[in-house]
Amino acid sequence: MLSSHLSQVYRPDFGLLTDLYQLTMAAGYYDRQLHRRKSIFHLFYRSAPFGGEFALAAGLPLAVELVRGLKFSADDVQYLGRLTGANGQPLFREPFLNYLQRMRFSGDIYGVPEGEIVLPHEPLLRVEANLIEAQLLETALLTVLNFSTLIATKAARIRAVAGDDTVLEFGLRRAQGIDGGLTASRSAYLGGCDASSNVWAGRYYNIPVRGTHAHSWVMAFPSEEEAFDAYATAMPNNTIFLVDTYDTLGGIREAIRAGERLRQRGHEMLGIRLDSGDLLQLSIQAREMLDAAGFPNAKIVASDNLDEHTIQHLKASGARIDTWGVGTRLVTGHESPALGGVYKMAAIENADGEWETRVKRSSTPAKASNPGRLGIRRYADPASGQPLASLLYDDLGDPPSGPLITAAGTAFDLPSGARTEELLQPVFRSGDLVMDFPTLAESRSKAIENWARWAPLVGPHAIPYGLDARLHAQKLALLADHKA
Amino acid sequence: MLSSHLSQVYRPDFGLLTDLYQLTMAAGYYDRQLHRRKSIFHLFYRSAPFGGEFALAAGLPLAVELVRGLKFSADDVQYLGRLTGANGQPLFREPFLNYLQRMRFSGDIYGVPEGEIVLPHEPLLRVEANLIEAQLLETALLTVLNFSTLIATKAARIRAVAGDDTVLEFGLRRAQGIDGGLTASRSAYLGGCDASSNVWAGRYYNIPVRGTHAHSWVMAFPSEEEAFDAYATAMPNNTIFLVDTYDTLGGIREAIRAGERLRQRGHEMLGIRLDSGDLLQLSIQAREMLDAAGFPNAKIVASDNLDEHTIQHLKASGARIDTWGVGTRLVTGHESPALGGVYKMAAIENADGEWETRVKRSSTPAKASNPGRLGIRRYADPASGQPLASLLYDDLGDPPSGPLITAAGTAFDLPSGARTEELLQPVFRSGDLVMDFPTLAESRSKAIENWARWAPLVGPHAIPYGLDARLHAQKLALLADHKA
Repeated sequence: MLSSHLSQVYRPDFGLLTDLYQLTMAAGYYDRQLHRRKSIFHLFYRSAPFGGEFALAAGLPLAVELVRGLKFSADDVQYLGRLTGANGQPLFREPFLNYLQRMRFSGDIYGVPEGEIVLPHEPLLRVEANLIEAQLLETALLTVLNFSTLIATKAARIRAVAGDDTVLEFGLRRAQGIDGGLTASRSAYLGGCDASSNVWAGRYYNIPVRGTHAHSWVMAFPSEEEAFDAYATAMPNNTIFLVDTYDTLGGIREAIRAGERLRQRGHEMLGIRLDSGDLLQLSIQAREMLDAAGFPNAKIVASDNLDEHTIQHLKASGARIDTWGVGTRLVTGHESPALGGVYKMAAIENADGEWETRVKRSSTPAKASNPGRLGIRRYADPASGQPLASLLYDDLGDPPSGPLITAAGTAFDLPSGARTEELLQPVFRSGDLVMDFPTLAESRSKAIENWARWAPLVGPHAIPYGLDARLHAQKLALLADHKA
Repeated sequence: MLSSHLSQVYRPDFGLLTDLYQLTMAAGYYDRQLHRRKSIFHLFYRSAPFGGEFALAAGLPLAVELVRGLKFSADDVQYLGRLTGANGQPLFREPFLNYLQRMRFSGDIYGVPEGEIVLPHEPLLRVEANLIEAQLLETALLTVLNFSTLIATKAARIRAVAGDDTVLEFGLRRAQGIDGGLTASRSAYLGGCDASSNVWAGRYYNIPVRGTHAHSWVMAFPSEEEAFDAYATAMPNNTIFLVDTYDTLGGIREAIRAGERLRQRGHEMLGIRLDSGDLLQLSIQAREMLDAAGFPNAKIVASDNLDEHTIQHLKASGARIDTWGVGTRLVTGHESPALGGVYKMAAIENADGEWETRVKRSSTPAKASNPGRLGIRRYADPASGQPLASLLYDDLGDPPSGPLITAAGTAFDLPSGARTEELLQPVFRSGDLVMDFPTLAESRSKAIENWARWAPLVGPHAIPYGLDARLHAQKLALLADHKA
């Protein structure tokens, strides 16, 4: 029996793309007729990945597609009808399954646009919807926003150290599944990479694609010389010669000779690629050899387990590398392979139609969630646009008045005369998509600009961020209430 | 502009699911009329993940689907036709694009069945095909086999330390994309997990699914007591109460009272779940409280960043946990988020139709690839079935005769009187699928049996594995040849 999901599962119905407990809870809410109670959930992360202090928001268009795909086909429902509990009895009853088949998302969603900076505990998404809809969306929303934000953040870190150099994402073969690769390529571009090797990413997201040849090309010919010439003949306008199949310095000499022959035919060699060995020394030698041979414009591309740390080190040491090919460590997140975002209830309507706020306690108080309908208000210098503070407040009551209380308990007055901006923007209203999405390239430009602005704001230079005093008091009261 | 791949890209045509350089090389092979030259490529990893010494093969059915989907639609080809090189000229020419549109995989593939143990440098896959077909498949094959094998291996490690306890995979929300989650759930089950929370995995792979309720369920009710009763009413045959929403010991007491009320209605509480705090002490206290209250059969489920290390530690310390819920650290691979498998040419037909063998050199000799048409021969004790040796040999010449040369250069005689088995099995012949696939559950049983047999064979107890003397000599000669 051969069974695989690749050609059968990606369809518009994403209802079943969830954890079973969302469905058992949904059945329970339906059973108690609580399923249409309004609820508010926030999706946020608690600590920034890669040892950083913030993350680059990404994945909102994917989340939108999941929300629009919150549907259950007849086959989906039949599958659920066959599931059984401990005593072999069906887990789900007929009326609930019929309800599922008719259900569509009908609520409101607010989200942080792609390319914005998000601080710990600030919601990337606020879902205000019937309890059953909000609950059923949890898992899939976490999956795409956690991963997209993780990889966009890694890419932004790499972009920042690479400066004006070109950064190429090469990671598909080491990605966590096909969609892991595709979403990684999208997020990597958003975060600041210039192009990808992933042709699906090019086709489906209009991301620039780049690539020339592999070691196997060289090995397919009797000699490196023949291999380079054959490649130059086939692709005269796309010639980056990979020089380390057998011996790197010998490969560079062969590339130069191939470049000379190519020039006689009216084309310029674009450059060479180093994929192993001491990239620092080899790049310096390669630059000297290329310059001496009359190829000062030939680029040096380097790859081999690169990330922001190795790139920074190589640049600081004087490596002569123009283009960085980054793969495994970018598309998997390497040292932080998951963002750890969570999705927590913050308010629910009671039987009288009034909001009741909720917190999830935790043994570590910093892990406790925030109650209410959270807004994120950013304060910036009106002239320079420099960020001054970021305030999390409860939108259910009066407007925030400060002071701002940080996680460490320090109070700051809200900046006066600052330009303010609400970070959470309407995405869905009553089930209808209301957000206009920029192109991925536009979001990428914004991301690069934002990251450059925020990158210095770390450690002692971090701006104050935290809770409005009223939200802070409300949270403490709720936590104390549960203790009692 | 809203654009996302979720509902558009998973279709039967996987031709473009590749790195651009595979296509530029393909165009070059076509240009030189080398594209139909027979070639042999091996897909293998060089060092085992998670600090282990071998991996559990997984992903072959996904690879098969990619091979069958090696097709380019008219839209795909139009997209490629629009790509340009450095001077704005099209990268690909019409005859090549026409060829692509007609191309189907027509070669032979041998693969290691799922659930077998694979050692470093042993091919998970051997592709014998027209150069162009073998090349175009590289990236996608690596993506699915790297990731599947990685997660199946992690799951096998967890299964091994969990002993007879139940292991549930809960990782979808932290997975690297939707397909990352689905492939992870599949691989986790294959490696030995008992069930998944991922309903798509249940639906598409017939994997048992499990789940009860989250903190949000408790927070949707005015009190934990009401929440547990409501859940028990809705799902009387699926009652695992999550007890740590507010205060764990208080939650256990509420669960016991809810269990007593449930019992009066003729149902048994299945157990409780701990999701935070000191799992060792809390599980011991929970067990005492449940036993004292007359619930000796109620299971204790634990979750919270678990992996094989924490599970082993908790079990050795006397934790009273029956069921382990494992998420992030399983589905992302955590400390080893990529397997690092590669795909290397080992032979190519020359103009006279004869095989020429190839190696990819490396600055580290251990990283050099092996030449020829590799076979993996396993030697086992005929009575006990215990593995005795694993031999990599070149199938292009005479049968292997030993001795076996390890990576350290030590020579071992081949075991005499042993039962031998060829690990690589035919998957495709002349483009036709010829392998019969077992069910995923059958492969899982075999995987658990294999892992249990191999787990002790590490460090000083490792069996000899390496190259047949003839292959070893051939490799050295080729490496020396390139040096010259």
